[in-house]
Amino acid sequence: MKKTIIKPTILPGFMELLPKEQRIFNDIVNKVTKVYEDNGCLPIDTPIIEKSEVLLAKTAGETEKQVYSFNKGSKNLSLRFDLTVPFSRYTAQYFNELTFPFKRYQIGKVYRGERNQKGRYREFYQFDVDIIGKDKLSISNDALVISLASKAFKSIGLTNYKFQISNRKILSGLLEYLKVDSAANEVMILIDKFDKIGEEIFKEELDKILDKEKSDLISKVINISGSKEEVIKSLELLNIKNDKFNLGIKELKNVSKTLELLGVQENEFLVNLKIIRGLDYYTGTVFETLLVNNEGYGSICSGGRYDNLAENYTNNILPGVGISIGLTRLFFVLKEIGFVDNYQLPSKIEYLIIPVSEINSYIYEVYNKLISLGKTVEIYFEEDKLKKKMNYANKFSIPNTIIIGEEEEINRTINLKDMNTGLQRILKLDDMNI
Amino acid sequence: MKKTIIKPTILPGFMELLPKEQRIFNDIVNKVTKVYEDNGCLPIDTPIIEKSEVLLAKTAGETEKQVYSFNKGSKNLSLRFDLTVPFSRYTAQYFNELTFPFKRYQIGKVYRGERNQKGRYREFYQFDVDIIGKDKLSISNDALVISLASKAFKSIGLTNYKFQISNRKILSGLLEYLKVDSAANEVMILIDKFDKIGEEIFKEELDKILDKEKSDLISKVINISGSKEEVIKSLELLNIKNDKFNLGIKELKNVSKTLELLGVQENEFLVNLKIIRGLDYYTGTVFETLLVNNEGYGSICSGGRYDNLAENYTNNILPGVGISIGLTRLFFVLKEIGFVDNYQLPSKIEYLIIPVSEINSYIYEVYNKLISLGKTVEIYFEEDKLKKKMNYANKFSIPNTIIIGEEEEINRTINLKDMNTGLQRILKLDDMNI
Repeated sequence: MKKTIIKPTILPGFMELLPKEQRIFNDIVNKVTKVYEDNGCLPIDTPIIEKSEVLLAKTAGETEKQVYSFNKGSKNLSLRFDLTVPFSRYTAQYFNELTFPFKRYQIGKVYRGERNQKGRYREFYQFDVDIIGKDKLSISNDALVISLASKAFKSIGLTNYKFQISNRKILSGLLEYLKVDSAANEVMILIDKFDKIGEEIFKEELDKILDKEKSDLISKVINISGSKEEVIKSLELLNIKNDKFNLGIKELKNVSKTLELLGVQENEFLVNLKIIRGLDYYTGTVFETLLVNNEGYGSICSGGRYDNLAENYTNNILPGVGISIGLTRLFFVLKEIGFVDNYQLPSKIEYLIIPVSEINSYIYEVYNKLISLGKTVEIYFEEDKLKKKMNYANKFSIPNTIIIGEEEEINRTINLKDMNTGLQRILKLDDMNI
Repeated sequence: MKKTIIKPTILPGFMELLPKEQRIFNDIVNKVTKVYEDNGCLPIDTPIIEKSEVLLAKTAGETEKQVYSFNKGSKNLSLRFDLTVPFSRYTAQYFNELTFPFKRYQIGKVYRGERNQKGRYREFYQFDVDIIGKDKLSISNDALVISLASKAFKSIGLTNYKFQISNRKILSGLLEYLKVDSAANEVMILIDKFDKIGEEIFKEELDKILDKEKSDLISKVINISGSKEEVIKSLELLNIKNDKFNLGIKELKNVSKTLELLGVQENEFLVNLKIIRGLDYYTGTVFETLLVNNEGYGSICSGGRYDNLAENYTNNILPGVGISIGLTRLFFVLKEIGFVDNYQLPSKIEYLIIPVSEINSYIYEVYNKLISLGKTVEIYFEEDKLKKKMNYANKFSIPNTIIIGEEEEINRTINLKDMNTGLQRILKLDDMNI
């Protein structure tokens, strides 16, 4: 009977890496994790599958259409589409056992049945940090989470990013002041699309919604540019009598100043009043992160402040601020811009022992000796040609090989080769102290 | 309108931990990962969702019933139920880009719709290592993977485990020798159940399947006990003329000896001829791991040798040997036996800065100074009573607090308290070199 071979493939929209790239991906995860942990963030992990009625409590429209849902037994289940909803459920569920402010980080896969296009994934990692207060949360945390993103990027050697920061209160205060009322949502959606549609179409569309006077003022405000001091100064000079608007300026000023005090450099961020982050839950600080000269890839890290995280699950008031890195997408972008190719990651293995006669106890004696000296060692067990064995060391950039044959065993020596210089040395095992 | 509150709950059979336990879980993952990486294993990560026709190529019966499958668009999708099948698909798919022997490790969640019972999970982590050869793979690798499990357990401070090792060739050779033929599967299934049903019922059932003479010999063989040398000696003395049987003994002897050469101690393992690991793909070495005095929890780490990993996906012959730790289940057991409660994990944060007046730039100066000295620091931003602020340090076992008020700012000092001894010191910021 002829065997049936099934073609080994994965679904479109799913990322899978070769070991070499996977090591780099994991190294990025480890470095970012270290930043979060060194700043007091605690890990949590939540199920990928949740009850649909819990997970989709708030969701409607576009998001819900993209969710992977299915029945199992009598239950309708869904795969999480972000880490924020499960986190809000978690915080409400274990409220009494958590210490606030609660700083949590979480990395995990999420699922969205998006249309398949380059750089868009259906299964992708998110890497989130949120700080949640009980009833209140200092504005300093808004700057802190952005400073963590800054440290995270620096820790992996990424430099050409720029945080684009705004505060939702400024625009919603302005719309309140202009009595835009029922058209407010429509205007916000339009501003959110500004970068996609361009200034001209934006203004045309805005003129259709509002009087010219109001439309002109809004256009003027969101296009204010310059250094962050200049932008803030310009906003203040508008002299708009609206509490929310002025609170927004005050918060933006505070975040901006605190960022510098936290060591985020002048050139790492700017104020961009067009940043909205959709209509959902953000209520204060909002930010995105663009790669300078590669803005077309979109934001690699976004987030903001929300007044009440878990309102679907609890009556407790839980204000918070968070950041989210779309890690799978970021890795895709880092590959595109050549960052992954240039990523230096040395071999974990320092020594490859290559037996050239039968494997015997002397081989293991050398192996154990090296391990006792704190070295990382592999033994090449297979009976292959020497060239193939050496090639294994080359493939994985193992810097040293140790050839052991009968002669070495009899003399209790090792034949050590530095793979970078090609230099070979014969060492006595018993005096060995590499 | 009154808000509807949805009760925050997760599905039964899913594990979720509080941050304190999650830190321990992650610490275990990190330590085991280090062992695998220090021994040359490479990471891979595969999608949780795969095409059903690929994932279920070989599966039948019980396993298939437990799989989470659903339709999305025109495709039938399944959640992976182990890491072995996706790994075999991966190895076949990227065959030409991999270097053999290919040592890979992988940690990830897998899904099985099992009946919900204590200690059984529907979503659980597996943590696997496999070493795969092209056409051939040295028997030394069988010992190597078990030695990695030994190192992994030692790295987390677990000591009371015992590897139970056998070789499938011994029993299948014996059945071949006894010409059991068509009843062989039935006999193997019965041996696999030995520990569940007990010796008496086992023998009764076996007598129903086979002649008394054959049944007696099989019972005698699987009940051989003693030190591994004694067991192997007893097997040899049976003087059974069957090549497979004798090859099994030879391999078992080799693995046993190599384990010792690799530093696995005499008391860490024994030969247990009742170990089968089901009917599936294992063809040589098989092993399980029991916790001494807690055998009832079952195996915490199992694995073995298979002749051909990816036969459904490729015509290449890929023999391998692997181990799998059911990490979620292991963590459950470690909680049950008190291991988690005794797990020592110091705070990542060394200093908590506690402002007692307004947050000002001096606070950040102290913060940045400590960071420049390589310390891990948190600032308590919220306006709370001092007692609550100190309590935060206590809750997370942060060993030092730094109180900063107006006086400290004016004098450019810090008020440092060692939370363990209660000792307080006033230090000058500018000479500070903690």
